Amino acid sequence: MPEKPDEMVVTPWRVEGEIDYEKLIRQFGTQPIGEEILEKFRRYTGGLHYQLRRRIFFSHRDLDWIFRKLEEGEKFVLYTGRGPSGPVHLGHIVPWIFTKHLQDSFQAKLYFQLTDDEKYLYHEEFSLEFTTRTAYDNALDLIALGFKPELTRIIVDAVHIEALYHLAIKVAKHITGSTIKAVFGLKDSDNIGLTFFPAVQAVPCFLESVVQGRNVPCLIPAAIDQDPYWRVTRDVAPKLGFYKPAQIHSRFMPGLGRGGKMSASQPETCIFLTDPPGEARRKIMNAFTGGQPTAEEQRRLGGNPEICSVYQYYAFIFEEDDGKLREIWENCRSGAVLCGDCKLKLADRVAGFLERHQEKREQMRDRLEEFLFSEEERKLIWSRGLPKP
Amino acid sequence: MPEKPDEMVVTPWRVEGEIDYEKLIRQFGTQPIGEEILEKFRRYTGGLHYQLRRRIFFSHRDLDWIFRKLEEGEKFVLYTGRGPSGPVHLGHIVPWIFTKHLQDSFQAKLYFQLTDDEKYLYHEEFSLEFTTRTAYDNALDLIALGFKPELTRIIVDAVHIEALYHLAIKVAKHITGSTIKAVFGLKDSDNIGLTFFPAVQAVPCFLESVVQGRNVPCLIPAAIDQDPYWRVTRDVAPKLGFYKPAQIHSRFMPGLGRGGKMSASQPETCIFLTDPPGEARRKIMNAFTGGQPTAEEQRRLGGNPEICSVYQYYAFIFEEDDGKLREIWENCRSGAVLCGDCKLKLADRVAGFLERHQEKREQMRDRLEEFLFSEEERKLIWSRGLPKP
Repeated sequence: MPEKPDEMVVTPWRVEGEIDYEKLIRQFGTQPIGEEILEKFRRYTGGLHYQLRRRIFFSHRDLDWIFRKLEEGEKFVLYTGRGPSGPVHLGHIVPWIFTKHLQDSFQAKLYFQLTDDEKYLYHEEFSLEFTTRTAYDNALDLIALGFKPELTRIIVDAVHIEALYHLAIKVAKHITGSTIKAVFGLKDSDNIGLTFFPAVQAVPCFLESVVQGRNVPCLIPAAIDQDPYWRVTRDVAPKLGFYKPAQIHSRFMPGLGRGGKMSASQPETCIFLTDPPGEARRKIMNAFTGGQPTAEEQRRLGGNPEICSVYQYYAFIFEEDDGKLREIWENCRSGAVLCGDCKLKLADRVAGFLERHQEKREQMRDRLEEFLFSEEERKLIWSRGLPKP
Repeated sequence: MPEKPDEMVVTPWRVEGEIDYEKLIRQFGTQPIGEEILEKFRRYTGGLHYQLRRRIFFSHRDLDWIFRKLEEGEKFVLYTGRGPSGPVHLGHIVPWIFTKHLQDSFQAKLYFQLTDDEKYLYHEEFSLEFTTRTAYDNALDLIALGFKPELTRIIVDAVHIEALYHLAIKVAKHITGSTIKAVFGLKDSDNIGLTFFPAVQAVPCFLESVVQGRNVPCLIPAAIDQDPYWRVTRDVAPKLGFYKPAQIHSRFMPGLGRGGKMSASQPETCIFLTDPPGEARRKIMNAFTGGQPTAEEQRRLGGNPEICSVYQYYAFIFEEDDGKLREIWENCRSGAVLCGDCKLKLADRVAGFLERHQEKREQMRDRLEEFLFSEEERKLIWSRGLPKP
């Protein structure tokens, strides 16, 4: 796991903790997203998504190769996922918003893995029943964002294992216990399910290649903390005759408290997609900001958006227009808008978003099956991987 | 793994290496099969199977409990299996013969696990394609022995994983890496698939309980070298609310060489069920015996059946009649029958057995599906273990 970027610097043009994320790039051995890559995105998507403009997605592996393959006529598939340990919060959907943008822009098929097995194995107190149910529930939040059913395959590990296991043991054969210990920090006192799990997380990288019977490039948009999985997967892929998966890495959306990643373990600092809108308003009104102790001081000295969690909510999700985001920044800096007003405006947007999302979410309940990895496809992958009697 | 019982003592009434197997009972903490258990067998099966009379099955865990449950009206299921690393040899079918006897005597359902995943993970050079194909092939040898299709469920791990995985991760959650290292001698340099595998081998103990929705006793007839798996499984079972599986342990059938377990890695010392009968004859004629250097000496001094591999073939499989087995013993001892004749007689029996077996095996090829774990049953177990969306 990467170090937590405790102190973030945020400007209207970039949302980043420059020092920490550059360190991550060096530590993980990834590449920063440079002008050349951005130019490719502009060309293919007719502009730059706000998450690229603000460097919310800031790092990659082999994204240049993904575009090269595209130019050669080889389309990529997308793969991302979630560990269903509880309700989805706003931080989780940041990369999903970008993933939807990629699906729409490139008409790319998405494999989305819900790791009910991992979360069951990780949390002493969780039942598999709970994590599998949570997986279905979290899937509603995903599809409510507008993914295309014909291009989306939601995998629930324990439920859909028939399509995964034969590939997982092929991956597992090439990973030693030492590697797992070194990369994930597991110990002999951890259970053997957790030790095996990284093999299961590797599998969706290769599913489309199995379906098509030829190598298909795979691009993984995900927060950078998932990178260790892909490093291991990239080592194994060529041994199985598959392309190495490419990655594009996002930063963490900060919580409503003072610094740090938004985390479900601190429910007051994060807004769940299932929070009643009033609850979300309350959390926002209690948020940590960059304001001065008094209104008078704030009008005189201006606020400090660099350290303000409310500002970051605008930047990560709730204000896509750079001009308007800059305005928020400058109104804070100048003391023209006080924290209370700024919070109220955000609270309105978040509450409005949640209302619409929760309505959509309920509408999608009956359509979940359309998005789930179908039995037909599972059987296809299973039958391609295993001989018949 | 237990120590190899290099020096076996064999008498017409018992086939055993007394010292080694008693040591195993102490080491593994199992129980010898005593008169009380034998009496139960006599009562339920109308006699004693030759493998019980000769103490080929010599040790157990909770067999008294299995009979107690039976008396209370709770029928047990059987579970055994095989690692499909190559062709089946005569040593493998010794416990299968006894398992068939149990199926017939108790009308017991049998779960038979073919661990294509384990053998793929264990052998560097094996493909999964190979071990899965070998699993189907080995299954023919099993069903050619006369198991009842309506009472037999052959599981091929990688193929039938949908019914196993959710239970395997439940088992895995309760087994640490340390336990696996201590019990199976695995190291950090071993692959993570092997580390996870004991959880998969545990699962069939519990399948019938899931099918019936209530606890069903499970009895595992198998060679004693598999005992470490069951010790681990027995520790986990109550944590998942299942009965501990009971075991009945067999000795190893010796090879045709000087001492030691029959092993596929020494093909000259073991007879494969797919060996051409002529090949089997040749191996038997080259077998190590307890004979004297010359015919004259043998007639004068008599042979030594205690150390004779040919004698053991009679005792383990090819002479079920104790009186006739005693005759072979005494004719050897007295020098009345020389090794050549004794081998010829065995060669005839083995060749005849192989001819019949191989014919039956081919006949069963079209009927394999009847014995394989059906999709319907797999779906049933899957759906009982995992919530629906």
